[in-house]
Amino acid sequence: MFKKDMHISLLLDFYGDILSERRRELTSLYYNDDLSLSEIAEISGISRQGVRDAVKKSEAELLDLEEKLGLCGRYEELRAQLARISGELNSLALASKEEASKLKEIAMELSTLNI
Amino acid sequence: MFKKDMHISLLLDFYGDILSERRRELTSLYYNDDLSLSEIAEISGISRQGVRDAVKKSEAELLDLEEKLGLCGRYEELRAQLARISGELNSLALASKEEASKLKEIAMELSTLNI
Repeated sequence: MFKKDMHISLLLDFYGDILSERRRELTSLYYNDDLSLSEIAEISGISRQGVRDAVKKSEAELLDLEEKLGLCGRYEELRAQLARISGELNSLALASKEEASKLKEIAMELSTLNI
Repeated sequence: MFKKDMHISLLLDFYGDILSERRRELTSLYYNDDLSLSEIAEISGISRQGVRDAVKKSEAELLDLEEKLGLCGRYEELRAQLARISGELNSLALASKEEASKLKEIAMELSTLNI
């Protein structure tokens, strides 16, 4: 048994459509539905080892894609930046007086996000 | 001669690292440096037809990736949304009085962007 790496679940969401349908399904059962290899073997009608090999191959393919393209990491970073900026805006909205220069600063930050 | 599709340039920026180094270089010369097939043939020492085939294969691979994953389109859409939100913030910053509810609305929009 190998340990489930939940980072794979994210990569599967991002790059999953590059996998063959069969492998994507098996991998999704394992990562998204959190079934065990034996459970997947039972419902898919292939051996536990067969499921394991398919999941392993998918993992390797997804990790290789992310290593080459880095799009998932870039997206997560952007998501964190947006959450922070959104929080700052909310704080400003609750402040009692207008803060035009701070608003301009945040707008500038938004427009220069590296996307 | 086939027409240059500048959308490919964007896909090359996004997914280019999935191509072999040689094909990525040839395709980049064509799309990013805007050289002709003949010019690329001359500097790379392969035939014009060889360059053409390599560029065509790259195009097909990039378009296939985007058709499967759609990450480039999703990113461009996000970029447009952020530019619009950034513009709204700038307008608010120039307004003479505080607009807390509008700020909250924009912050909400930021935090619910589909990313």
